[in-house]
Amino acid sequence: MEDEEEVFADTLDDLVLTGEPYFWPNLPPTVEYHDPFQLTKDDLQSLTSEIHDQLLGTEHPVLNKAAAYFFQSTAGKKVRPMLVLLIAQALTEHCRGIGVATDGSSMEGPQPFDETSTFEWQRHDLVTVQRQLAQITELFHTASLLHDDVLDEAETRRNLPALHTVFGNKMAILAGDFLLSRACVMLGRMRDSRVVEAMSIVLEHLVLGEVLQMRVPDSHLNHRLVGYLRKNFYKTASLMALSCKSAAMLGAYDPALLDASYRYGKHVGMAFQLVDDALDFEGSAAELGKPTFSDLRAGLATAPVLFAIEEHNELETLASRKFTQPGDADRAVEMVLHSNGLERTKRLARLHAEQAMNAVLDWKPSVARDALVSTAYKIVERTR
Amino acid sequence: MEDEEEVFADTLDDLVLTGEPYFWPNLPPTVEYHDPFQLTKDDLQSLTSEIHDQLLGTEHPVLNKAAAYFFQSTAGKKVRPMLVLLIAQALTEHCRGIGVATDGSSMEGPQPFDETSTFEWQRHDLVTVQRQLAQITELFHTASLLHDDVLDEAETRRNLPALHTVFGNKMAILAGDFLLSRACVMLGRMRDSRVVEAMSIVLEHLVLGEVLQMRVPDSHLNHRLVGYLRKNFYKTASLMALSCKSAAMLGAYDPALLDASYRYGKHVGMAFQLVDDALDFEGSAAELGKPTFSDLRAGLATAPVLFAIEEHNELETLASRKFTQPGDADRAVEMVLHSNGLERTKRLARLHAEQAMNAVLDWKPSVARDALVSTAYKIVERTR
Repeated sequence: MEDEEEVFADTLDDLVLTGEPYFWPNLPPTVEYHDPFQLTKDDLQSLTSEIHDQLLGTEHPVLNKAAAYFFQSTAGKKVRPMLVLLIAQALTEHCRGIGVATDGSSMEGPQPFDETSTFEWQRHDLVTVQRQLAQITELFHTASLLHDDVLDEAETRRNLPALHTVFGNKMAILAGDFLLSRACVMLGRMRDSRVVEAMSIVLEHLVLGEVLQMRVPDSHLNHRLVGYLRKNFYKTASLMALSCKSAAMLGAYDPALLDASYRYGKHVGMAFQLVDDALDFEGSAAELGKPTFSDLRAGLATAPVLFAIEEHNELETLASRKFTQPGDADRAVEMVLHSNGLERTKRLARLHAEQAMNAVLDWKPSVARDALVSTAYKIVERTR
Repeated sequence: MEDEEEVFADTLDDLVLTGEPYFWPNLPPTVEYHDPFQLTKDDLQSLTSEIHDQLLGTEHPVLNKAAAYFFQSTAGKKVRPMLVLLIAQALTEHCRGIGVATDGSSMEGPQPFDETSTFEWQRHDLVTVQRQLAQITELFHTASLLHDDVLDEAETRRNLPALHTVFGNKMAILAGDFLLSRACVMLGRMRDSRVVEAMSIVLEHLVLGEVLQMRVPDSHLNHRLVGYLRKNFYKTASLMALSCKSAAMLGAYDPALLDASYRYGKHVGMAFQLVDDALDFEGSAAELGKPTFSDLRAGLATAPVLFAIEEHNELETLASRKFTQPGDADRAVEMVLHSNGLERTKRLARLHAEQAMNAVLDWKPSVARDALVSTAYKIVERTR
């Protein structure tokens, strides 16, 4: 229970950040910019094709096709596996020479291993299981998209028609279940119970996030903002936080590094979702890979709307009837664009991005560490 | 991969049994009848209310209600947790006095522990985790029902209106996901990777079973019967087989006992599903707790139909168009009832029940062992 309580406890206080971002528009002075996507491009491509090939092993051709649908090489940015790979690499670099490897090489200084871990991995094994963890994050994410898209009756996803429109609802639910079951099998085979537990909690959070999104909005505006941020934590940040922490747990690093990895993932996740919600108002359909104003049309009031309500009282009325009357959505867009809603959303995203940077800034400089910091930066600055 | 391959390999040969049941209509001579439901009644009741209470802990009242919906004390027979509890107890009795307990008491004879197991449980801990495993089986089962019912557009379940008709499709999918995630968290906390792996494979099998059921039927009748039995294995028997085996793995018993537990669960599961499919033709709605002829009306040709086709060629035509023309279902029922289809289905069920009995008959006599045998007997003789 401890892990869970801890996670629940830190959501409230730590998600509503205030103040001004410190580094923006620059990177922290000690960091060199490395394009994280460029850096991990080959790795992510082989990882995607590994998932794709693995999923083709079932007895049912339609299920194979459905499950592999989103693991075509072009689909999706693969942010989640990228974070896991970079965290893994940065931790290795940080601890190089201070006794991380159990194969006997480079053992100097104090042992950073956590004694409670059941397994000690050889360096080679560690890279393998961390890569598997990266695959699992993408399987979890895609499974939740499949179920969400059925629920939301979404029509496109990643510039492809949503799966349920191609294969039917039934196959979409089953394909989601199938991806989850494959991920659970992989997880079980890692033989690290702390990781199994952490990643199971992610599954629970994904459901809770979806459910919070369905809940009737609180009438008090501040509560509603907090509720929105909690929902973001459950739907987006928890997977990133707990998978980054799991990457560290697999390496049996010490608790401070586990905690830093968790905080990095959480704050990057929060920033990512806030920017996503801003781009729903700013991006064009072709650039973003999903229809613009889609949240609004689905009746959801995200950060830009919640901030804009403070300037336009009428928006409150539209939001509380979920933009269902003719013309509601258009008027709401108008009001959001004529408010500080988008700017305040992006400022909050920057604050989270800086928390993410701070979590890893005291790690030994390395390309991977700098790429983590660059990721936090790039996620906020992206336009799609 | 080994476990999985092994499971896949034994499905084909071992599921299509032929011959005549040996013991019927009597129990094996060395066994005394014990009503398994009566024996485990209090245990199952407290187990059900524990699950119910645990599920009430989320932030969303509707999700709580939905998730707990099927864990009201009156709903369902709880066959799966019952099997786990009885296997656990029978194994304890079988090994009593030959050194099972790690608490130092009753250590005589050879140690039956499997050396590869990571954890050795104190007797008290073992009972606790085996009970948790029993809860997990029911969570898995209920989650798959929730998703199946959405898929099949079923209208009742366990004499209650199906969840999706009360709470909506969206909440039914999410409630299923939620139960799965809770089960995975419990599983992770057991800290036994072999059990995590075995139970993850169950999840995959539940999906495969549902998908096999959707597949266009093979035109060759024998292949179709084999396909039907595989589907039964994936949808029903695999959960029982692997949860019984997991109960044994938690006790770190030797491989022969693990294997016997697996075979017991598998064959009881096969028998159970065959009888279920027969009762769909024989039981009345009130007795069975679900509408009669429901498989047929859903377009599914189960064992009674597949056997009856050998006597009534016309049934083939009706089955291949999934009983969709007006009057098809009524004519099909007529033909099944005027054939040996039901008798042959029940004979096959009896053969599986005997395989189940044989798996545990050489265990040391105990009330629990006799209750396992009685369960196999009762499952075939039940009328609802």
